[in-house]
Amino acid sequence: MSHSLHKELLVEIESGLNHLQLPQTPETLYQSFKYALNGGGKRIRPILSLLGCGMCGGQTNEALPAAIAVEILHNFTLVHDDIMDSAETRRGRASVYKKWDQNIAILGGDVMFAKAAQQLGYYGNEESYSKKEFSDINEVFLNSTVTVCEGQALDMEFVTRDSVSHEEYLEMIAGKTAALLSGALEMGGIAGHASPEQRGNLKELGLCMGLAFQIQDDLLDATADPERFGKKPGGDIFEGKKTYLTILALERADEDQSKIINETLDAELPTEESVNEVLSIFKKLNVLEDAIQEISDRYNRAYELLANFSDSKYKTELKNLLIFLQNRDH
Amino acid sequence: MSHSLHKELLVEIESGLNHLQLPQTPETLYQSFKYALNGGGKRIRPILSLLGCGMCGGQTNEALPAAIAVEILHNFTLVHDDIMDSAETRRGRASVYKKWDQNIAILGGDVMFAKAAQQLGYYGNEESYSKKEFSDINEVFLNSTVTVCEGQALDMEFVTRDSVSHEEYLEMIAGKTAALLSGALEMGGIAGHASPEQRGNLKELGLCMGLAFQIQDDLLDATADPERFGKKPGGDIFEGKKTYLTILALERADEDQSKIINETLDAELPTEESVNEVLSIFKKLNVLEDAIQEISDRYNRAYELLANFSDSKYKTELKNLLIFLQNRDH
Repeated sequence: MSHSLHKELLVEIESGLNHLQLPQTPETLYQSFKYALNGGGKRIRPILSLLGCGMCGGQTNEALPAAIAVEILHNFTLVHDDIMDSAETRRGRASVYKKWDQNIAILGGDVMFAKAAQQLGYYGNEESYSKKEFSDINEVFLNSTVTVCEGQALDMEFVTRDSVSHEEYLEMIAGKTAALLSGALEMGGIAGHASPEQRGNLKELGLCMGLAFQIQDDLLDATADPERFGKKPGGDIFEGKKTYLTILALERADEDQSKIINETLDAELPTEESVNEVLSIFKKLNVLEDAIQEISDRYNRAYELLANFSDSKYKTELKNLLIFLQNRDH
Repeated sequence: MSHSLHKELLVEIESGLNHLQLPQTPETLYQSFKYALNGGGKRIRPILSLLGCGMCGGQTNEALPAAIAVEILHNFTLVHDDIMDSAETRRGRASVYKKWDQNIAILGGDVMFAKAAQQLGYYGNEESYSKKEFSDINEVFLNSTVTVCEGQALDMEFVTRDSVSHEEYLEMIAGKTAALLSGALEMGGIAGHASPEQRGNLKELGLCMGLAFQIQDDLLDATADPERFGKKPGGDIFEGKKTYLTILALERADEDQSKIINETLDAELPTEESVNEVLSIFKKLNVLEDAIQEISDRYNRAYELLANFSDSKYKTELKNLLIFLQNRDH
C-alpha cells in the first residue's frame, strides 16, 4: 500500500471521528459509544468511502461525513452482534455488553445508528449536492443497513438449520460483510458526484471484494500454517462453524463423509484426528481448489471494475489494497 | 373525538402499514417485525403526523410516509425497551423477545429502525418537496430518535441513582415520551409544507402534550379509584418506581417522611399500609395539587399553541384529542 496516502486518509478519518462532538450525558450512553468507536479498528470502510470519492474526481474531505457514517454504523453492528454471539471480547478488549451491560450495549448501539445517519445531514445542507444525490446517499446507507441485518439474521438461522446450500451461504456473507463495503464505496462515489456508471462499478466492486474476503477467511482457517502463525488449521471445524468449505463439502460428500463432517462439527470437543479427517475430506472433494477459484474470480472481477476508472492515486491505492488483501496469508 | 375523521385517519394508517411490502425472508426477522407492528397500538403518533399535516393545509396522504416512519420507529423502541425492562408482555401479548428470543428482538428492532428511516425516502423522490424540506424531515426524525434513546438511558440511570431531581425527571420523560410526539407532529407539518412558525408551534405542542400525558400517568396511578377500575392506588409505589410524585415528595420531605418513602420504594414486598402512608405524605406535601397544576399548565399551553392555527377539521380533531387525554381518569 502507498503508505503515505493511506496514512493521510487515516488521519483524516480519525480527525473526523474526534470532531463528532458527542454529548457528555447520559454518561453510560456516550461513554459506551466512544469506547466502541475507538477500539482500534482498521477503518477499512471509511477508507473505501474516501477512495471511492477520489476515484470519481472528488475531494476526499467531501466524503468524510459519509465515511464517518459508515464507520459508526459498522461499529454499531459489532456492538449488537457481540451481544447476539455472546462474544466477550472484541479487538482484544472487553466487548461493550461485557464492559457495561447488555442494556447499555443495546441502547448504545441504537444511538450509534441514529448518530451515523445524522452524519449524512451534511449532504442535505451542502449546496453542491442535488436533492437526488442527498436522497441517493441516504438510500444506499439504509439499504446497506437492512442488508447487513438480513445477513446477520440468516447467519443466526443457519446455526439451527440442518442443511445450508453454498448459494445461501454466499447470500449471507453478501449481506453480513459485503453490503457495507459496497455501500461505503458507493456512498463515497456519490459524495464525489459519481456518474451512474461509476456508482454501479463501485457498488459491484465492493460486493466482489467483500465476498472474496469472506471466503478467503474461511479458506485461510483451513490452510493455516501452525509454524508461521501459531494457529492450527481447522479452527472453524473445531468450533463447529458452518463455513463455505464445510457447506461445499457437505454438498459433495457421500454418506460416510457426511457422517464424519457432521459428527465433528456437532461434537462438544472434537479430537485433532477428526478435525484432520475433515480437512482431508476437503482435499478429496476439491473444496479448497474451488474456494481458491471463487476467491480469485471475485478479485479478478474487482480489478476489471477498477480498470473502468481513470488513473489516480486513489485508484492505485484501492488496487494496492486489493492486492494486499488477496495476498494475505492469515 | 370526531369519530368519523379519527376512523378515517386510522384506516389510512393501517392501509399504509399493510402496504409496507416487507420481504418474506429471513423469516424470523420479518415475522417479528410484523408481529411488533400489529399489536393493536392506538397509533397516536402517526395520527399526530396526519393532523399536523392537515393543520398546515396539506393533504393527509402526503404525511403518510412520515406517519408510517414514526409508527415503525415507536414500535422499534418498544421492542428494545421490552428487552431492557424484562417486560414479558406488551399490549396483552408476549413481547417480541419473549415470543422469539432476545437476539431476534435486538436484530428485528434494528431492521425496524432502518425500515422506518427508509419511509422518508418518499420526500426525497417527490418533486413537491424541496431539498431543505427533505433534509429537515430526516433531521427531525433522527433527532427525535436520539432524544428517545437519551431518555431511556436516563431512565435506566435513575434506577441505580440515590437521588433524582424533578427537573431531571422532566428531562427524562421529555426524551422518552414527548420527543417522538413532538417529532411526529413536526414531521407531519413539514409534509404539509409548514412555515417555520407553524413548525415551531407543532414541535412545542407535542412536547407539552407528552409531558402532560406522562405526569398525568404518574398522578392517575396515585389517585386510582379501586371501585371503578379494579386497581388500587399506589401501584407505582408498590413496584418501587421513581415517579414525578415520589421525586417531588422526596424533594420536600423531612427526614422521617424521606425514610418512609425510601423504605417503601426499596421494600421487596411493601405492605398496603406503608403504600398508603406514602400516599398520605403526597397529600401532606401538596404533591398531588402541584402535579395537577403542572399537567394543567401544559395542556393550557398546548391549547394556546393550537389557537395559532387556522380553523380546520384537523385542528378540531387535535383539540378533541387533547380534551380526551386531559379528562381521562385511568
